[in-house]
Formats: sequence, structure tokens, C-alpha cells
Amino acid sequence: MRLSLQPSLDPTAYRFVHQVRTRFAETDAMGIIHHGNYPAYLEEARAAMLRDAGFPYEDVRAGDDGIDFAVLELYVRHRQPLRFDDLVAVHVVVDDLTRTTFQVGYLLTVDGQARATAVTVHGAVDGRGRPSRMPAFLAGLVGPGD
Amino acid sequence: MRLSLQPSLDPTAYRFVHQVRTRFAETDAMGIIHHGNYPAYLEEARAAMLRDAGFPYEDVRAGDDGIDFAVLELYVRHRQPLRFDDLVAVHVVVDDLTRTTFQVGYLLTVDGQARATAVTVHGAVDGRGRPSRMPAFLAGLVGPGD
Amino acid sequence: MRLSLQPSLDPTAYRFVHQVRTRFAETDAMGIIHHGNYPAYLEEARAAMLRDAGFPYEDVRAGDDGIDFAVLELYVRHRQPLRFDDLVAVHVVVDDLTRTTFQVGYLLTVDGQARATAVTVHGAVDGRGRPSRMPAFLAGLVGPGD
Amino acid sequence: MRLSLQPSLDPTAYRFVHQVRTRFAETDAMGIIHHGNYPAYLEEARAAMLRDAGFPYEDVRAGDDGIDFAVLELYVRHRQPLRFDDLVAVHVVVDDLTRTTFQVGYLLTVDGQARATAVTVHGAVDGRGRPSRMPAFLAGLVGPGD
Repeated sequence: MRLSLQPSLDPTAYRFVHQVRTRFAETDAMGIIHHGNYPAYLEEARAAMLRDAGFPYEDVRAGDDGIDFAVLELYVRHRQPLRFDDLVAVHVVVDDLTRTTFQVGYLLTVDGQARATAVTVHGAVDGRGRPSRMPAFLAGLVGPGD
Repeated sequence: MRLSLQPSLDPTAYRFVHQVRTRFAETDAMGIIHHGNYPAYLEEARAAMLRDAGFPYEDVRAGDDGIDFAVLELYVRHRQPLRFDDLVAVHVVVDDLTRTTFQVGYLLTVDGQARATAVTVHGAVDGRGRPSRMPAFLAGLVGPGD
Repeated sequence: MRLSLQPSLDPTAYRFVHQVRTRFAETDAMGIIHHGNYPAYLEEARAAMLRDAGFPYEDVRAGDDGIDFAVLELYVRHRQPLRFDDLVAVHVVVDDLTRTTFQVGYLLTVDGQARATAVTVHGAVDGRGRPSRMPAFLAGLVGPGD
Repeated sequence: MRLSLQPSLDPTAYRFVHQVRTRFAETDAMGIIHHGNYPAYLEEARAAMLRDAGFPYEDVRAGDDGIDFAVLELYVRHRQPLRFDDLVAVHVVVDDLTRTTFQVGYLLTVDGQARATAVTVHGAVDGRGRPSRMPAFLAGLVGPGD
């Protein structure tokens, strides 16, 4: 298990926040958002952070290096359920960057109340899925920023 | 983090195995099964294990207790990608049963080769989402069995 | 087949437009957005239109009438594929309101270019899934508006 | 609208039947299977029919022609809802084959009772998404067979 990042409950520990409106299609028969949708929320927030930082994921994928950030590990802790039509603030921070992997921490809140925390561990892979060198720009995204 | 179970790479450490055929709808633009689909595979295998043990999930949900097994934590480690049309053997074992939670370990293999391991931590909740007593039958499902 | 609405390619024929950013999780191994995600886009746009019109879907569901708008029929015509990170304008119009059903037409565009058109046919059902009277407010939402 | 096939309510009008067990992840807050999951059920049944006929979809995609069957149109009529843990028989038939398109009809039943009918219209495209010649083997799959 490479996963080591401890996601904070303090929003100021994060660099970026992305809003996601939950969909009715994402509810389940318990009347809450099914846990299987959280990976897509996390990924949408990662992509928004990269776009905001000037590195749209599509450019990263299509560039000379043709790099994808494969998900190696995923951890989600559910604190309170999300419900349909919730406007979820997904706080994102990159940390624990090594030569081959980096980790992303997440805090999901609704109206300032923590609903879930999560961590993903990523490796860089080329177009054939083989491990690749980590793009240099990632070093500039580590931590909560200024 | 309640998650403590270490999922084994040895299929004999599991009680039950459930086959899932991956869907084209579950692939992504990297040409592999998107990681967001794994929670649904795990859940399908849990439901199949309960059905096989004589406790169909729908009966548990509709019974006097009206119990749901809420997902409190989820961890997935991706070892090798799954691809479209793979027939995935999802091995399942219940462990670490306490008065309020239990954990489920998973090993996903294709043709005997490990593709992923995973753990989910569950609590019993009643129809209104409040913590509930763990159903007695779970004690009989702990470990790999005979 | 109740479906009768012919969705226009002219954006001015629609009452409301809702923006959806496609997710990487929604791509498939052809490198495009998988067609199975379109129903969720349409539903999100319907919910946004109701919210904008002052009738949040959650209020409609939780109100005295406890009404859901069941999907009776769905039709989608794919003209050009959507790709990851596309910002999709989903144009929405209600039409063909009867005592028991209404239809919703959709035009999906990216940068003003038509990508898909769609129609859904809905009936009002109560909390037990039985046909219910159509809420009066729907009559005010028919057509493209002023 | 190319869609012309009228899906029959008679199971003998279909060539092939594929069983799908609904997932809890596919339910919604109405307590039924969300309509957005039906396209994936239809696609899984199409793939199973091709596999059964000796033309696994992965072979078709990876072959010299590198052909994909793009979905041009989709129509679903919901007659009765599906629920969690339903074992759904998805009946499939190919029809209305032209030089550039073919249509597939579907009947979804649970315990012999019709739940939905559907039609998809497909075109053959090459690896770059351009229209391609229809593979010859499709002509042998038209209609309910012997």
C-alpha cells in the first residue's frame, strides 16, 4: 500500500476547490448518492485543478509525452451521505510526489460540512500503459499553495 | 481510518467467488476498465455472496429490521488493468466483525492472474440511515469457511 | 410509442440551456463519450430547468403530492460524438403536455455545433409508482417562452 | 430518424437471449433501476449475441477492418420498472440491415413479463470514426433464425 496521505478536514489545507452538483442518476435505493460515483467526482475535480493550473488533461494526454495519470490506489471515507441536488465542494491537494508516483487528497463538503475525505495514488504511464517519467509541472502543484 | 483488513493474493483465503463480465460501457479512453466501476463489481460480489449464503440482500433490506449495509470506507489497489470482455473472478471474504462494523476483502483475478485487491468497511443502518445492530447471521460468514 | 416531439436543430426553439462538462469517466475505448451517459445529461438539464423555473425537483418530490416524473420513453439521435472535457450546451424545451404525460426535447451542442438531439416522454407518478395527476405548474413551462 | 424497427412483445421473434442481474449501484432514489442503465444492458446483450454467434466484439474491433458499431440512435420504452436483484432476460434480434446501417430490437422480461422494449440503430465505423463497410457476417444474423 503506497497510500500515505492523510486528508485534512481543514479546507485551507487544499489548493483548489471544484463544485459538483450531484445527479439524480447517481442516487440509489437508500435515497443517497451511491458510493460508486465518488471516484468520478474526484476525477472531475483533479481535471478541473489541472485545467485551472494551465495544464488541461487533454493537452497532457495529447502532448509529446502522451502521458496518462493511472490510478494505482483509491481510498474513500464516507462521513455523511450526499443527497440528490447537493452542491458539493471538492477540495483538492497534490502531495507525496516521488519520481514515479504522486498522491491527491480530497475533502468533500456541503455547506461547509464534511461529507467525505479521499486519497488517490497515481503513476504516470505512456500511451501503451507503461510507467513513464513524471511531468515536471507537477512539482509546482504540490501542497496548498500560497 | 477503520480499514485494517489486508486482502490476500491467495484465492484460498476467500470464502466465495463471483464472476463478472466487464462491459464496453465500463471502458474509458485509455482502453481499459475505468476505475470508477470497481465499487459496483465489489458490491455485486457482496450481494452474490449473501444470496449464496441464504441471505438475499433484498430480504435483509425488507425484513423486520430493514437493514442496509452502508459503505463507510473503500480501498482499491489496482495491480493490472481490466479490459473489455474480461471475465473477472471476484473473490470475497468477510472479516474484522465488530459490534458496529465489518470488513470485506476482495481479490480480482482474470485467468488466475491478480488484477486488483480491495477492502470495504460497512456499518449496519436502519431505514432512516441511523446505526443499527449488526444482524446475527454475519458471524457465520466470517473467514474463508471450511 | 407516445413519442411525437421532433427536436429542433435551432437553439431558439428551446426555453432553457444547461452546461454540462463531460467527464473522463464517461469516455469509452472508442475515445468518445459513451452513449450510455446521455440519459444522465438530459436528466441533469431537466432538473436544472425546473430549478431555474422555481420548482426544484426535490421540492416537487417531497411536496404534498410527492410526485416523480417517471421516464416512459427515451430517444437519442447521435449526430457527432462528444469527447472528454467538452463543454456541452444542453438546450431543453417542454412540449406535448397531456393530462397524463409530457415530452421534453433536447439539443446538445458544443461551440454551437449540433452533437445530438433527444426526446423523453414522462408521466407523473406518486411515491408508490402509480400514475398521478400532472402538477399544474407544468403548463407554464410549455414551449420556448417569450 | 432512421429508427424503423418495431420491437415485438413475443420472445420467439428474437434470435438470442442474454441474462443480466441488476445491480444495487443501478437503483435510484425512486427504488427502481435508473433508466440511464438500460443502454449498458442492451450493449451487454449485443456483445453476448455476437460472442455466441462466433464474432466476439473484441475480434471485430481488433481485426483487419478494425470496425466499431457506433450507436446512431437509441429508443427505449419503459413498460414496468426493473428492481434490484431482478434477473432480466434481454431478448435480441438484428434487422433492417442496409449497406450502411443495421437495427437491433430488444425485449426485456423478468419472469416472462415484459418490462421494456428498445431499438438501437448502428453504423460501422473504422478506427478513426469514419463510416466503414458493414462486415459481411451481419447478413447471417438477421432475424430470429431457425
